[in-house]
Amino acid sequence: MSSPPVCVLGLGLIGGSLLRAAATTGRQAWGYNRSAQVVDAAVADGFDASTDLTATLRRAAHADALVVIAVPMPAVGSILEAVAEHAPDVALTDVVSVKAEVAAAVAAHGLSRRFVGGHPMAGTAESGWTAGTAELFRDAVWVITVDDGTDPEVWRQVAELALDCGSVVVPAESGEHDAAVARVSHLPHLLAEALALSGAGGGDLALGLAAGSFRDGTRVAATAPPLVDAMCEGNAEALLVALDETLDVLTTAREQLADRSTSALTRAGHEARTRYEQRRRDPIVGTQPGDDGWIAVFREAGRRGGVWTR
Amino acid sequence: MSSPPVCVLGLGLIGGSLLRAAATTGRQAWGYNRSAQVVDAAVADGFDASTDLTATLRRAAHADALVVIAVPMPAVGSILEAVAEHAPDVALTDVVSVKAEVAAAVAAHGLSRRFVGGHPMAGTAESGWTAGTAELFRDAVWVITVDDGTDPEVWRQVAELALDCGSVVVPAESGEHDAAVARVSHLPHLLAEALALSGAGGGDLALGLAAGSFRDGTRVAATAPPLVDAMCEGNAEALLVALDETLDVLTTAREQLADRSTSALTRAGHEARTRYEQRRRDPIVGTQPGDDGWIAVFREAGRRGGVWTR
Repeated sequence: MSSPPVCVLGLGLIGGSLLRAAATTGRQAWGYNRSAQVVDAAVADGFDASTDLTATLRRAAHADALVVIAVPMPAVGSILEAVAEHAPDVALTDVVSVKAEVAAAVAAHGLSRRFVGGHPMAGTAESGWTAGTAELFRDAVWVITVDDGTDPEVWRQVAELALDCGSVVVPAESGEHDAAVARVSHLPHLLAEALALSGAGGGDLALGLAAGSFRDGTRVAATAPPLVDAMCEGNAEALLVALDETLDVLTTAREQLADRSTSALTRAGHEARTRYEQRRRDPIVGTQPGDDGWIAVFREAGRRGGVWTR
Repeated sequence: MSSPPVCVLGLGLIGGSLLRAAATTGRQAWGYNRSAQVVDAAVADGFDASTDLTATLRRAAHADALVVIAVPMPAVGSILEAVAEHAPDVALTDVVSVKAEVAAAVAAHGLSRRFVGGHPMAGTAESGWTAGTAELFRDAVWVITVDDGTDPEVWRQVAELALDCGSVVVPAESGEHDAAVARVSHLPHLLAEALALSGAGGGDLALGLAAGSFRDGTRVAATAPPLVDAMCEGNAEALLVALDETLDVLTTAREQLADRSTSALTRAGHEARTRYEQRRRDPIVGTQPGDDGWIAVFREAGRRGGVWTR
């Protein structure tokens, strides 16, 4: 298994960290950013970066590099347009936090053949090149999509890059990924915001009496609002499903509380938290990317919490 | 300021910790528990404890001790009956997590004159004598009620005990206390249970992708369900108000999310969390318990996050 060069388009927190991480593993790696200031900072830090998207993509096509789209969702379309023009046959992945929308945009640009979606579930409240670090992906879950027609050779290239960065690789179909992160990543933000509001609604007395349960339950409400908006609005369809379910759960709990009982909710919630604490990451064995039926096997393994390892 | 003896009725986690803490400060301290097993354990640990409620209370009356009710809410009535019979004139407080209901029970037993409610906001997931520790109250907030007619001398006795135990003293009217803890202590539990359920509803894939926001947002769902039920059901009226507000907030957010915007919620939530992070504990100065209008001054100070210090 050779390690192809990596070309990162977008050098913000995630893309910038990926350029660093890929270079650290000894791969040839270079990046593009539209801002000269960001590129200057990357070059000053010893990395290979350019503001010339066309040249960057031609170089990727020539070197048969793995191209990683690391720009925010609104910028994905224009990047794909350039890829379709200058490097239509490269192996292509992305690190955007929603997967179905990216896959649709890739298909719209005729680039699905060698595209495999990715989502490294890593980040900080910071953003930009200067916030990046080669260690950002260490022990993080990196979802790699297994949609119909996925090229097994590209899938393996993306998975090897994720493993090289120290991540845990979980395969998932794009829509299932979006539904899952709505529940465990985007809904927690909405509930944290609502809880913070409830506390503040009680004034300084309530905030003064707040202890661990409030502190932990509102922690992510400290995230910069535009970052939360981008996540939640970008996955609105799936998040609406999760939020509606939760509104139903809380409305039922409200009725039971009016009858002086919360035990149905607390028992179910405790069981759910226990299941989370006891989750396992079983390695996928016996099937390799490209084997007959591997996509169905990998999807089902991911659904059961399985991970791909070397 | 002399430190009166302390008589603790009920030697579970809170009462048992309080007996230890009071003894550690050098006060004369003794306790009662109805279980011989618990009393034997306390005595074996070197503490003064008895299963004889009548004798315990007569001793308290004779020594003019501060009597602390440290039994669960359902047992408060029968304890008050015994106090009314054997020690009707002692200074009386409690450590139960709801305050209006306790105050009403005290009034029903004709014991309001020398009663001041208390709520040390400390605890662990454990319970019982063996789980107790003299350090349980260190740096915890200890709410002491300032209801109409509060005896300033008893208030000061309770506050001195709380300070001796290392706590931070916040004055609050009973009903305002209950409304505040519904928001910052009981509602967080309901939301954590609901979030855990949402994650588990996404199966092992969702639980496998869960990171910090889900882990922290569901932490208190790991609490034993009967403990959560007791807290929430015991403060149902106030919790219904907080839960209804939150259902409104989330329902509005749901409508805005359907229009692809979460910014109203995230901005307000961020502002609320920032207010929590920046909360201050200003000491009450210029007014002492018993001064003209001290109850109104202390209530207002507590509403602004103020604390009483020596």
